[in-house]
Amino acid sequence: MPLGEKAGFEKSQSRYCGVETEFNDDIPQLLNFNLSTGSFDFVVAPLMNPTYRPSLLEKDGVLPFAASDLVLSPSQWSSHVVGKLSSWIDLDSEDEALRIDSETTLKQEIAWANHLSVQACILPPPKGASCANYARCVNQILQGLNNMQLWLRIPLVKTDDDAMDANSTSFIDSWELWNSFRLLCEHHGQLSIALDILSSLPSVNSLGRWFGETVAAAIINTDSFLTNGRGYPCLSKRHQKLITGFFNHSIQIVISGKPAHSIPRPSSDLAANNFDNNGESPQRHPLRPYLDYVGFLFQRMDPLPEQERFELGYRDFLQSPLQPLMDNLEAQTYETFERDSMKYIQYQRAISKALLDRVPDDKASATTVLMVVGAGRGPLVRASLQAAEETGRKLKIYAVEKNPNAVVTLHVSSNELTWYLLQQSLVKLEGWEDIVTIISCDMRFWDAPEKADILVSELLGSFGDNELSPECLDGAQRFLKQDGISIPSSYTSFIQPLTAAKLYNDVKSHKDLVHFETAYVVKMHNIARLTPSQPVFTFTHPDYSTKKSNQRYKRLQFEIPSDTGSAMVHAEDLMQIVRGKIGSTQGFAGYFDAELYKDVHLGIEPSIATPNMFSWFAIFFPLRTPVCVKSGSPLEVHFWRCCGSSKVWYEWCVASPNASAIHNSNGRSYWVGL
Amino acid sequence: MPLGEKAGFEKSQSRYCGVETEFNDDIPQLLNFNLSTGSFDFVVAPLMNPTYRPSLLEKDGVLPFAASDLVLSPSQWSSHVVGKLSSWIDLDSEDEALRIDSETTLKQEIAWANHLSVQACILPPPKGASCANYARCVNQILQGLNNMQLWLRIPLVKTDDDAMDANSTSFIDSWELWNSFRLLCEHHGQLSIALDILSSLPSVNSLGRWFGETVAAAIINTDSFLTNGRGYPCLSKRHQKLITGFFNHSIQIVISGKPAHSIPRPSSDLAANNFDNNGESPQRHPLRPYLDYVGFLFQRMDPLPEQERFELGYRDFLQSPLQPLMDNLEAQTYETFERDSMKYIQYQRAISKALLDRVPDDKASATTVLMVVGAGRGPLVRASLQAAEETGRKLKIYAVEKNPNAVVTLHVSSNELTWYLLQQSLVKLEGWEDIVTIISCDMRFWDAPEKADILVSELLGSFGDNELSPECLDGAQRFLKQDGISIPSSYTSFIQPLTAAKLYNDVKSHKDLVHFETAYVVKMHNIARLTPSQPVFTFTHPDYSTKKSNQRYKRLQFEIPSDTGSAMVHAEDLMQIVRGKIGSTQGFAGYFDAELYKDVHLGIEPSIATPNMFSWFAIFFPLRTPVCVKSGSPLEVHFWRCCGSSKVWYEWCVASPNASAIHNSNGRSYWVGL
Repeated sequence: MPLGEKAGFEKSQSRYCGVETEFNDDIPQLLNFNLSTGSFDFVVAPLMNPTYRPSLLEKDGVLPFAASDLVLSPSQWSSHVVGKLSSWIDLDSEDEALRIDSETTLKQEIAWANHLSVQACILPPPKGASCANYARCVNQILQGLNNMQLWLRIPLVKTDDDAMDANSTSFIDSWELWNSFRLLCEHHGQLSIALDILSSLPSVNSLGRWFGETVAAAIINTDSFLTNGRGYPCLSKRHQKLITGFFNHSIQIVISGKPAHSIPRPSSDLAANNFDNNGESPQRHPLRPYLDYVGFLFQRMDPLPEQERFELGYRDFLQSPLQPLMDNLEAQTYETFERDSMKYIQYQRAISKALLDRVPDDKASATTVLMVVGAGRGPLVRASLQAAEETGRKLKIYAVEKNPNAVVTLHVSSNELTWYLLQQSLVKLEGWEDIVTIISCDMRFWDAPEKADILVSELLGSFGDNELSPECLDGAQRFLKQDGISIPSSYTSFIQPLTAAKLYNDVKSHKDLVHFETAYVVKMHNIARLTPSQPVFTFTHPDYSTKKSNQRYKRLQFEIPSDTGSAMVHAEDLMQIVRGKIGSTQGFAGYFDAELYKDVHLGIEPSIATPNMFSWFAIFFPLRTPVCVKSGSPLEVHFWRCCGSSKVWYEWCVASPNASAIHNSNGRSYWVGL
Repeated sequence: MPLGEKAGFEKSQSRYCGVETEFNDDIPQLLNFNLSTGSFDFVVAPLMNPTYRPSLLEKDGVLPFAASDLVLSPSQWSSHVVGKLSSWIDLDSEDEALRIDSETTLKQEIAWANHLSVQACILPPPKGASCANYARCVNQILQGLNNMQLWLRIPLVKTDDDAMDANSTSFIDSWELWNSFRLLCEHHGQLSIALDILSSLPSVNSLGRWFGETVAAAIINTDSFLTNGRGYPCLSKRHQKLITGFFNHSIQIVISGKPAHSIPRPSSDLAANNFDNNGESPQRHPLRPYLDYVGFLFQRMDPLPEQERFELGYRDFLQSPLQPLMDNLEAQTYETFERDSMKYIQYQRAISKALLDRVPDDKASATTVLMVVGAGRGPLVRASLQAAEETGRKLKIYAVEKNPNAVVTLHVSSNELTWYLLQQSLVKLEGWEDIVTIISCDMRFWDAPEKADILVSELLGSFGDNELSPECLDGAQRFLKQDGISIPSSYTSFIQPLTAAKLYNDVKSHKDLVHFETAYVVKMHNIARLTPSQPVFTFTHPDYSTKKSNQRYKRLQFEIPSDTGSAMVHAEDLMQIVRGKIGSTQGFAGYFDAELYKDVHLGIEPSIATPNMFSWFAIFFPLRTPVCVKSGSPLEVHFWRCCGSSKVWYEWCVASPNASAIHNSNGRSYWVGL
């Protein structure tokens, strides 16, 4: 039974909880006990007798699997059983006989699991620091696997940096083990992680890295639970936070181990998982209190805000950026963006301030010429009129729009608007029908009848200039008065290195260069941010400098600081920046921040983002080859904005610690058309 | 005029010497002076006035190129002029105006050079440690360049490790600069190096790295020359060795700078390159003594041995390994390999020793049953008969061969052989027609009429077991007596990490995964060996162990030692192992060494190779992504030999410093058929 049908959660938002069991050759009873009695959603069950060793078996003997495939229906196998491979398997042992037995068994068990149609198998954790032979064998299997997932079990450990000295060989960061394993397996899409949660947790920043990885399940041992005042299991605050993070990332929970709490009930003396075949009477499952607690944590979570719920389907989904200059937007797109009231509130604030600066109170009757360039269906015209009303200033508005389809609506909406304002007597509109003039023309080529005091535009993309705002405003600047105001007055792009295994795998699945050299708009969720972001390109409007160019070049150095001491900033916030010993960058998140007018900002850079705004997701620049970074050795990144006669594009590369290829040379893969 | 038509050198082995000149807008005269008067083969000449800056030029002005394209014929431009780009170009300057001028000029000059059809342009060296913007611009140009080569000028410097401390920022290794540049440009095939040779040279091991790179030219400054007893220029021993290395690697020489020697001749007061237009009389070129000295160094070189000359065409040429088990060899192949007398001398020595061990002198009349498995056209039958003759032992020979085409010749040659031996009365052959029995059959399936004392085979590939010798001899072992001898008795493969830019580029040019996961037979020449080789897999014959398997797995750790102190081993030998600070591994060389019988070895591992043997080139295992290695941090490599029901294959990977993908999983790209 899924963990509650919570308010604010749709069915797709249910979370499941499984239980890890011992070997049992009566699978139907195992299932009945754990699912019906225990209310767990699935079992993680060994598929083969753990005493089996191929080298000890007589030739042509029957393999000691847990059960015949016939004991369950294929759909039961598929939905209720996750296979657990023999934990003695050790493919990197010094003992060759054990290695060979391990390889044979691994292949037999996975072949059997595949035959049963289980959805996933949990592979035992690598036994030492080396995992190349294990990875080689798993990689061979992955090449021929149909649909089944393989979850590599990884203990969630990282020794403290404090406890570590440079020459220590005992330093263990299980993330590094995972990183090697998946590199050896070429980031195979069917390979993910089952994290073993222990009673002590690594630092918050080390934990954060896992949220950029493909974690399928988190296995919580009963040892990790504390006891509350009434004798029931509960978790530490840090564990609670972690589990909540798992829920947020659709990671399944598995309870493992023997019951470690004496619940004041008759059933408390039952051993975990050792279901007594002779006991006929209905029993309470010994691990039920742990499940109940996990369910409680889930129930307690705040429901997702409506906007977040609306965006669930976009999480980590790669979209091509819009090309609003080359292509005409569709009505649906206008519809969506016009609903972003926060954005237009900011515009209205900026226009109001500009109007007040432009026209002192004693000259309030003067008319200000305001041009909305790229007016779309009119939201900025509305914001301008409302600013005029708010400040008591008189406006003459030109609304310039190149999309003839949008212009139709623009006519209707501007008439409605002025009519509405007139009705409300909010503004004294003499000759109101002349207030808004609609121009169906590309702003770059419009021959304006007069010059503007204020130029208002909303041409920004997720990366600021990526929808060619600079080129458009260069064209519009001709009809701005020398002392006129552009809203926005400037904008800056930002980038930030990410661990983003899901995004990387999705890009990689296309198996071509083009997709690795394209930037994507994406609602980022399953990512880890490795450092704070840094500014990249800034554009200011108007710009009357003589040798003006919209080409830009920026060299950035990101320091991945070491996770030393306990004075960590925001140590309570799981989603904070990772400062782990080593990270892997699969690409960069891009953002923008715009100065609309003076202190009125608008933007999506996480640390200063305008709240409750949904018009922009971040942008993702992938790297063809992930770059491993160490604390103390900076990640040097170069970004270029290049301009040709018919297109604008970005190029990017990593120069240090090791140089990457330069991505998107000459805009060969990705560009924005002029 | 090429540097002499040397004995032992074919025309393709000629070496050329150019001269670097100052800017001169009279190109025909420049050419006449340097080529006719000076006897140089080509000039390296600036194509544009060095005072030019785009930002200073009036718009639409004519660009100040050195000359109209009409002053020379296209073939003269192509064969006698290498373009030299303006040396002030600095694309990574902090000064944005200079950066932009640099980019404009770089593009103008290369476009002009391309228009002239010159074969190559020399790009000025990067000015600082950072070169990303320079590389980005060059990479953009390379995407659209037809045939012209770009030679990045790199000064041959590396500060001593002795003089370096860990925190020093003044540490410069120009190889690292090159390595970054070419990584950023994705190892583009038209990008190579012009090395600037200065008066002081880095350590021998640091120099060695360059022989694995694509060096097109070496520019020697006159400052680097010493003065001999008669006042003429000469070079230090170390410089001489280096230049000889360049000749060996087909690297062109360019003389640069002003004459620094006062040759006791009337012309000695002439300034270099500043050809006086007014002087009408034929003059001696002021740099001629330097050219003469370089020509002398070339003339003095030992001619190539015949075998090396024969193999010139195979240098760094990737060949697919033979599949002698699946395919039948052609007559030409037999012909080539049979000519390798050294190989058969070693076999004969091994067989003789085995015969003497097997049959004591007092039992010399006993007949030894010897089987040649894989007899081909009979060279091992001949070696066996000669061994019998040499030791005075009696032989009965079975010659087993699966290729029916070879068996035809085997019949003829064995008859001729025995007849020849009979004629010579070298051996007393009673019933000689019965000595050799020819069996046309695959040794794995032959039903032998008796058991052998000695089993002789030559089934080894460049990597030892890669032509399936283990599998074939497993099949043949059935008819070897329990105490019988196998020749070879064991063999071991070796690998060694390489810098091999040429091989890597050739593999990369196929633009697919398959070629990156294939091993190639190759006469390695343009390579640098980064460490000594290490043994990989060993097979021993006969092998009667019960759980015998021909699968193998080996984990190897290569230490790239730091180049500290002056006590370098073999410091005189340029081709020695590189112990530089950092190297780049593009793949591995593979070799084998076989123990034929007791102390009689046969092999190609460079440090113990059998001399004057040409049957095997090395094998090359490429890496999909080159791995940068630092001294002190080991390169960990894993190799697997995997066996399926119908094929045998290798898989390989790097596990440290960063994990690579596992290459050739399941033999998907490269395998040897059973």
